[in-house]
Amino acid sequence: MEKWIAVDWGTSTFRAYLVQNNKVSDTIETKDGMKFVKSHLFEQTLLSLIDRWLNDDEITEILASGMVGSKQGWEEAPYQQTPCNLKKLNYITPTLKDNRISLKIFSGISQTHQPDVMRGEETQIAGFLNETLNFNGSICLPGTHSKWVEIRNNNIIKFKTFMTGELFEIISKNSVLIHSVEAEKIDKMELLKSVDKILQKPELFSNALFQLRADDLINSKGPTIYKSRLSGYLLAIELLGSVEFWENNDIVLIGNPDLTEMYQFVLNKKVKSIKKFLSSDMVLKGLKNFKKISISLKHE
Amino acid sequence: MEKWIAVDWGTSTFRAYLVQNNKVSDTIETKDGMKFVKSHLFEQTLLSLIDRWLNDDEITEILASGMVGSKQGWEEAPYQQTPCNLKKLNYITPTLKDNRISLKIFSGISQTHQPDVMRGEETQIAGFLNETLNFNGSICLPGTHSKWVEIRNNNIIKFKTFMTGELFEIISKNSVLIHSVEAEKIDKMELLKSVDKILQKPELFSNALFQLRADDLINSKGPTIYKSRLSGYLLAIELLGSVEFWENNDIVLIGNPDLTEMYQFVLNKKVKSIKKFLSSDMVLKGLKNFKKISISLKHE
Repeated sequence: MEKWIAVDWGTSTFRAYLVQNNKVSDTIETKDGMKFVKSHLFEQTLLSLIDRWLNDDEITEILASGMVGSKQGWEEAPYQQTPCNLKKLNYITPTLKDNRISLKIFSGISQTHQPDVMRGEETQIAGFLNETLNFNGSICLPGTHSKWVEIRNNNIIKFKTFMTGELFEIISKNSVLIHSVEAEKIDKMELLKSVDKILQKPELFSNALFQLRADDLINSKGPTIYKSRLSGYLLAIELLGSVEFWENNDIVLIGNPDLTEMYQFVLNKKVKSIKKFLSSDMVLKGLKNFKKISISLKHE
Repeated sequence: MEKWIAVDWGTSTFRAYLVQNNKVSDTIETKDGMKFVKSHLFEQTLLSLIDRWLNDDEITEILASGMVGSKQGWEEAPYQQTPCNLKKLNYITPTLKDNRISLKIFSGISQTHQPDVMRGEETQIAGFLNETLNFNGSICLPGTHSKWVEIRNNNIIKFKTFMTGELFEIISKNSVLIHSVEAEKIDKMELLKSVDKILQKPELFSNALFQLRADDLINSKGPTIYKSRLSGYLLAIELLGSVEFWENNDIVLIGNPDLTEMYQFVLNKKVKSIKKFLSSDMVLKGLKNFKKISISLKHE
């Protein structure tokens, strides 16, 4: 029975999948993100989390990607540069104390001409490309740092990152707008109107942010309206900067269900085609693919 | 001997000036901003701060403006609406327990068509208008919430607020850029280049923010460069939204010395004329002016 472990170790979350005979038989998800782990405690943390999956009489292979391979992580896995093919992704093998495991941490990708970096998203992209052969178009991975990625002939040609999710987070929680945007839901029509307002007049952006607060003080339309506007304005400045990726193009969205649904709703009429995938599915498929490649490399 | 107290009570700072025979004879500045004072403790806080200026055998008049007159402050002083003349600014007189003082809190100004609000800045503007007769042009008050104000015939015609200072603060302190922008100084040429980059291509804004981090990871140009870029990008989106106020116009900057110098440096070649004033001077002159008016109203 073939058994291995896929690890998606990001800044704030740790996710591991036990794969047996090509199927996920167990999953672990915790808040032990890279930023909460001290640099000399990565092996210890990993072992404590996956201990129940290990046997003393065999070596279990672990494949990991994400911020765990950054400078602030376990050990730096140097970036590979764009344009690049994900079938040749590099990895490092940190020295381990425990002889029940072997470990590969895969590289992130960097771009020098228009400086940019990713770690973790390349695995999701590999997962998608592995099952959608000959996709030419753009992949959008919405989130804390949204990424737009151009794919041609199975290569990442270029990409751009936007601080959309992080700006939403810090503006909602740390600015004067905290009093106006605390809502559960989004009003989709207000969202769309707000996106289009800034797409048409980008110069309104900074004043529009303060207007949320002023409008609330004067007209009190309720937090759902103001949260929808804030989301719309921030999404619009992302779309303004990524227009070369989506205009009249085939688009793939990879992310969590809420975010990809929101992006699909807004982009639907602006793009040629649009499909959604779950990031957790794509990470696993990506690491599975990296595993196949690493086996084939051994046999060469 | 005529004696009164001018109070500039903002969100995070309390400033009071003892005025005797039209001259400031003592000053108090503390961190007892409006947001740190419980609603029923405003009188107590004020008295404890200015106690040394009061006598038992006379009533000392206090004139205050700023966020102390907001909903979250001592008592709400309703907004006056644009267009408005600062010679007719309203005030409220909260009920007091201590009979050694009398108190007026002046109104803020609101705008309904393009929702906006100010509290405190109107006093600085009144101070400036009182000594610069017949100014027609725009006043910019850079800061946490930068304001651009159009003045015609001694009236505030309209104004726009931008979250420039607050965005700088929360992006520097709460986002991934925290690792890249912690510097003391600004590189003026880098600042100017960054302003012009976004003025020419606003669509680059959101990606340019993340590029600061990526460029730092790849090229490590040092925090002064990245802080200057962040300042420049944020100032640019303010200038994009306020172009109707400054293009080919006479500009007055009211603020702290560092900020007004930075705005002057960036705007110098883009406007018709530009002058700088200190906000603390203008608040005091504004309250002095309100005091004169309130005397003349009593005599009518």
